[in-house]
Amino acid sequence: MSTAPTACLLIIGDEILSGRTQDANLKFIGNRMAEMGIRLLEARVVPDDPDAIVEALNMCRVRYTYIFTTGGIGPTHDDITTACVAKAFGRNVVRNPEAVKTLMAYYGERANDARLKMTEVPDGPSVELINNRITAAPGYRIENVYVLAGIPNIAQAMFEAIAPTLKSGDPLHSSHVDAFVRESEIAAELSKIQSNYPHVSIGSYPSLREDKFCTSVVARSTDQTAIDAALGEVADAMRKKGAEPIRPPLG
Amino acid sequence: MSTAPTACLLIIGDEILSGRTQDANLKFIGNRMAEMGIRLLEARVVPDDPDAIVEALNMCRVRYTYIFTTGGIGPTHDDITTACVAKAFGRNVVRNPEAVKTLMAYYGERANDARLKMTEVPDGPSVELINNRITAAPGYRIENVYVLAGIPNIAQAMFEAIAPTLKSGDPLHSSHVDAFVRESEIAAELSKIQSNYPHVSIGSYPSLREDKFCTSVVARSTDQTAIDAALGEVADAMRKKGAEPIRPPLG
Repeated sequence: MSTAPTACLLIIGDEILSGRTQDANLKFIGNRMAEMGIRLLEARVVPDDPDAIVEALNMCRVRYTYIFTTGGIGPTHDDITTACVAKAFGRNVVRNPEAVKTLMAYYGERANDARLKMTEVPDGPSVELINNRITAAPGYRIENVYVLAGIPNIAQAMFEAIAPTLKSGDPLHSSHVDAFVRESEIAAELSKIQSNYPHVSIGSYPSLREDKFCTSVVARSTDQTAIDAALGEVADAMRKKGAEPIRPPLG
Repeated sequence: MSTAPTACLLIIGDEILSGRTQDANLKFIGNRMAEMGIRLLEARVVPDDPDAIVEALNMCRVRYTYIFTTGGIGPTHDDITTACVAKAFGRNVVRNPEAVKTLMAYYGERANDARLKMTEVPDGPSVELINNRITAAPGYRIENVYVLAGIPNIAQAMFEAIAPTLKSGDPLHSSHVDAFVRESEIAAELSKIQSNYPHVSIGSYPSLREDKFCTSVVARSTDQTAIDAALGEVADAMRKKGAEPIRPPLG
């Protein structure tokens, strides 16, 4: 795990912080990072404020292997991500000729200035467009920063376009065992099991289901055999408290 | 707005970054902050890693009026928030006598060590319990950091318990006007309207609805009259493109 690539997701947009819009990109990126063995170590939501965006970009891009940004690359005045990315890298903003060609082919005479704004990228080397199968407006990579759309299905299409180019690590497997038991009744056993399996990360997540206390114990590791062994002991601990693990586990 | 209190939400938990769990606390806190006129300037998701949690706490608590944390205050080994908060403040962890009393009254003989872990708080001054109407386990405040549960309905109950104690600013109002028009067709007009209303923050959010391109233009300000005037101009701009604003606006 120590050599696994790392990542950070930068979610850009007042609409997320104001509570208007429920973010859906973190869950998607989080799942894909786990599958690809890239450790998503941070997600940060920043407002449509140039200083905040530039600062977050510059703090994160030296710290993680990959930075993914979502949001703020549309045609309107509040889409300021590209201006901020360029500023963070000390570059100018230019229209990318390939993106202009794609956009002109799609819009024809209707390609106004606002639409052409979506062809803008930072000037200079190590910039590559990220096309997607849904729209004529691309995202782009600049060095280790991947600038994606905010709309979830477009962000996902862009991510899948770049996924094969990312360094991956050993996939982080995850399994869980659930039972109608309070987590505080198995906490001591869980702590012991965690000590016995230092390369498995064991998490305990309580919830109320059908008005009964339920605990889902999740084990994450690159080693599925160790996960299975650890969760076998968890299931035994649940049974000792009179709670039969639910088969199949609840979603 | 310049003197409005500010806030940051620190979401603690591997389960959010791994994509297992969809966070629901940001949307709630974001909405409440807007209502209360507190500017939520950042949200950060950090893993169950002590160094990451302590660093984020210490960066954010000197920067914003209020820090809210969610997650990691349960009874199991992976609940490390209190240990990290104490470390960030250079304090020890102690069982709070009032919390112990409440917990003992609830659990009686079943109050094991794991459950008593939920009575732990950092030692020293400026620490206050945050009770909630759902469980016997409290959150707490230490200076300007409010430590809340991760489970959304408990986090919300804890937040409502402290809400009356927070300094609030002028409420940030928000209204929107929607139409079946592409945002790139009204982008130039939106930019002008934004210039005419510097104290209104105008955001444009595209979506596909009923397979048609739709744009929702959101105006946020402490001044509802200015919002209404700005959105009146937005509606006119939509009509000029042959798109009648949808009444009532889509959710």
